[in-house]
Amino acid sequence: MEDLLSALRHTLGDAHVLTASGDTAAYLTDRHGRLHGRALAVIRPADTVQVAAVVRLCRAHRTPIVPQGGNTGLMGGATPDPSGRAVLLSLGRLNRIRAIDPDNDTITAEAGVVLAQLQDAAHEAGRLFPLSLGAEGSCTIGGNLGTNAGGTQVLRYGNMRDLALGLEVVTADGEIWDGLRGLRKDNTGYALRDLFIGSEGTLGIITAATLKLYPLPAVQYSALLAFDCIRDAIAFLSQARAGFGAALTAFEVISDTALGLVTRHVPEQAIPLTPGRAWYALIELSDSEGEAHARARFEAVVGQAIEDGLVADATVAESLAQSQALWALRDQALGVAQQRDGGNLKHDISLPVSRIPDFLAATAAALQRHFPGVRPVAFGHLGDGNLHYNVSHAPESTPAALFADEAAINELVHDSVHAHGGSISAEHGIGQRKRGALLRYKSPVELALMRRLKQAFDPLGLLNPGKVLPDSPTEISP
Amino acid sequence: MEDLLSALRHTLGDAHVLTASGDTAAYLTDRHGRLHGRALAVIRPADTVQVAAVVRLCRAHRTPIVPQGGNTGLMGGATPDPSGRAVLLSLGRLNRIRAIDPDNDTITAEAGVVLAQLQDAAHEAGRLFPLSLGAEGSCTIGGNLGTNAGGTQVLRYGNMRDLALGLEVVTADGEIWDGLRGLRKDNTGYALRDLFIGSEGTLGIITAATLKLYPLPAVQYSALLAFDCIRDAIAFLSQARAGFGAALTAFEVISDTALGLVTRHVPEQAIPLTPGRAWYALIELSDSEGEAHARARFEAVVGQAIEDGLVADATVAESLAQSQALWALRDQALGVAQQRDGGNLKHDISLPVSRIPDFLAATAAALQRHFPGVRPVAFGHLGDGNLHYNVSHAPESTPAALFADEAAINELVHDSVHAHGGSISAEHGIGQRKRGALLRYKSPVELALMRRLKQAFDPLGLLNPGKVLPDSPTEISP
Repeated sequence: MEDLLSALRHTLGDAHVLTASGDTAAYLTDRHGRLHGRALAVIRPADTVQVAAVVRLCRAHRTPIVPQGGNTGLMGGATPDPSGRAVLLSLGRLNRIRAIDPDNDTITAEAGVVLAQLQDAAHEAGRLFPLSLGAEGSCTIGGNLGTNAGGTQVLRYGNMRDLALGLEVVTADGEIWDGLRGLRKDNTGYALRDLFIGSEGTLGIITAATLKLYPLPAVQYSALLAFDCIRDAIAFLSQARAGFGAALTAFEVISDTALGLVTRHVPEQAIPLTPGRAWYALIELSDSEGEAHARARFEAVVGQAIEDGLVADATVAESLAQSQALWALRDQALGVAQQRDGGNLKHDISLPVSRIPDFLAATAAALQRHFPGVRPVAFGHLGDGNLHYNVSHAPESTPAALFADEAAINELVHDSVHAHGGSISAEHGIGQRKRGALLRYKSPVELALMRRLKQAFDPLGLLNPGKVLPDSPTEISP
Repeated sequence: MEDLLSALRHTLGDAHVLTASGDTAAYLTDRHGRLHGRALAVIRPADTVQVAAVVRLCRAHRTPIVPQGGNTGLMGGATPDPSGRAVLLSLGRLNRIRAIDPDNDTITAEAGVVLAQLQDAAHEAGRLFPLSLGAEGSCTIGGNLGTNAGGTQVLRYGNMRDLALGLEVVTADGEIWDGLRGLRKDNTGYALRDLFIGSEGTLGIITAATLKLYPLPAVQYSALLAFDCIRDAIAFLSQARAGFGAALTAFEVISDTALGLVTRHVPEQAIPLTPGRAWYALIELSDSEGEAHARARFEAVVGQAIEDGLVADATVAESLAQSQALWALRDQALGVAQQRDGGNLKHDISLPVSRIPDFLAATAAALQRHFPGVRPVAFGHLGDGNLHYNVSHAPESTPAALFADEAAINELVHDSVHAHGGSISAEHGIGQRKRGALLRYKSPVELALMRRLKQAFDPLGLLNPGKVLPDSPTEISP
């Protein structure tokens, strides 16, 4: 492998082929410090041509490649296995915004651009790039594309696949596919773009993308609502979609249990509603007219729902500071509260919205039957049917006891999701942590089609091996 | 082949295996009567299980299959070749709406459901299915999916791929993939759904789909605007997107030349604006509040644009009848006028919106240079960059003379589209009529990836052969 390393150094320069453990450690451990991989080297190409060159070199040496963006993924998709055979390819230096076209409402950016930088660049051009998620200060566009990232604005703007018009990709052969089209309609062949998006670097390496921009809303308006049951929240979601139209850009729900963790562990977080209701929703209107119109619409739609008895209580953010406090509840306090509670078992799931009430009832009952006392901590993006359904330890027990049951609890939750027509990974992807579960929940027909795609695009199996696709039908775990 | 025919009769019943020319003729000629194919038989399975059974039978006999929906396609994608070797598989009997889920805003329908029926079923459930196009009274959901259909509402709701959440597909092996998920977020593997959509039956046969529904707008409001140049129309599009938000559901443009054909050939069509401007736009607001709000928004946004000098003239539809008359101009009169003018050479193209002015100027100049007197008749969906750029004969010449230059004119237009970063098929697909052109405009890398996909999913080449993919690198025509 010294041959490969010296060829890589020749191509990229010594400074961009890292082998000392002090230099590589941050790339080889996942964000949560749970997964530790090894690599022959961490390489940092400067541009697409260099990415193609190193793919050809690695291919000649039959050396696997693990692509990595901001290394913020939750499923271990960017962490190499412990064999040390692979090269870790960081896209971090491909960090240029290549073009902004306001008349076409598009931006073209390289894979290593940080999401927040892209949002800022769009904003400076008087446009909105709507993808928004917790890791936006460090995750990159390439990772967002590789995992088809979601976040809080999917209700209105869709996920990353919906926001991408064109891609530039380095194939497993080390060729460059220039698919950087800025077109909203293009029916000239197979959907290569959509296939590479969400494939987590297993079919090709995304090096740049042309993405959709939207007009900046004139004003954003947030409010916290309370509901007596999840069915009321769902009925109001339907009324809100009709009444607000596409101005409804977020509909986040938080269960009473989840809010209770915040009250207990993050007392400094303001919660401007009387507690004790079953569910809460943080909604956001993005209005194209202004403050007065947003307020009037809110009063009309929510006022009617209060009269109808659907909404039990409501409070609106009267200032930017109050609005930020509401979103801090959702974006920070909820996470901190779960950590301070000792951590829990996380499940990023989605369901048909209509089946969420039955799922919640059935899953809570099954958990109590098999793991008495554990607490479901549910919150998420009701508008897309995406729940973060986390399971916390029983109050009289310990987190350690909970984690000892991790496999069985994951299986119980995922079995219930599957039985209710849902997905075991709504927005975090598969990576290495959920690939075994695919064998349990995907049909043999679908797995066979996926394997054919992998074989067609990466016959040597060098692109991010051990990710997404289960190895073999004998590996079954939830 | 008598073996196959008797096996098909055994499986489907004699009445659904058609071989008499009186029975098969309508299936073997494309909608415009330009393409004539032959087939071993026209078969009409009743359900997905029968589709899978006939695919397995045809596979065992190495017999190609041409799937067909409403047979309204413009590119010959559903017309078999003249060899008579293939079986034409009509999906027309798979015409059930399987489920409507208003809380999840989804509808599940079989491939043979006519688009207008689906729109009606959604409407009865108090929901909108937004795909809308000229052939909606006879085209089917399966064909809409196979060609990733577009239409007039893409600006707001996206094309058919954006409207589909899940699919049921019969593979080339005759297996059934049940991917009928009603989920807005699902990141559990490769984008099979998006790959089958738009593949025109060459990778698998779509038998059913779960599709997105939207709230019905409270009111729709249409207006006709006039502009002194295309740049003004583009600048106003940007202002309208910001000012109307997602309420802007259509932005159709019509050039002066195109409108002139209507004036001349369809005098009964009302055109409620003084002629003589360079471009006209038919815009539609879908308002979630009501008539008064839509009118006030229209006056605010268009009033400002008139003050700014962007909009030269404007008239609003004051009644449903006036609104229908405006849309009749776009949907019927334009087509009739072109027919009465002797027909023309049609190009369904898309461009980055920002490059449309340069494209129009450069293409018109090149046409005049090489084909003096021919008239570009341009109209289309400016909001998506999708133009129908048709070329009519020179006034002193004849349609026949124009059609004699068809190949050269197509090549000139498509070369210009390609040079301006556009697509030679925005919403009509490739079929058999544009497949040769792919060799001219697609990179070898992209064609190779497409061929790998075809090989992976249909190694025997039995699914709709001769469609989408060019046969060989020697076949080059525009």
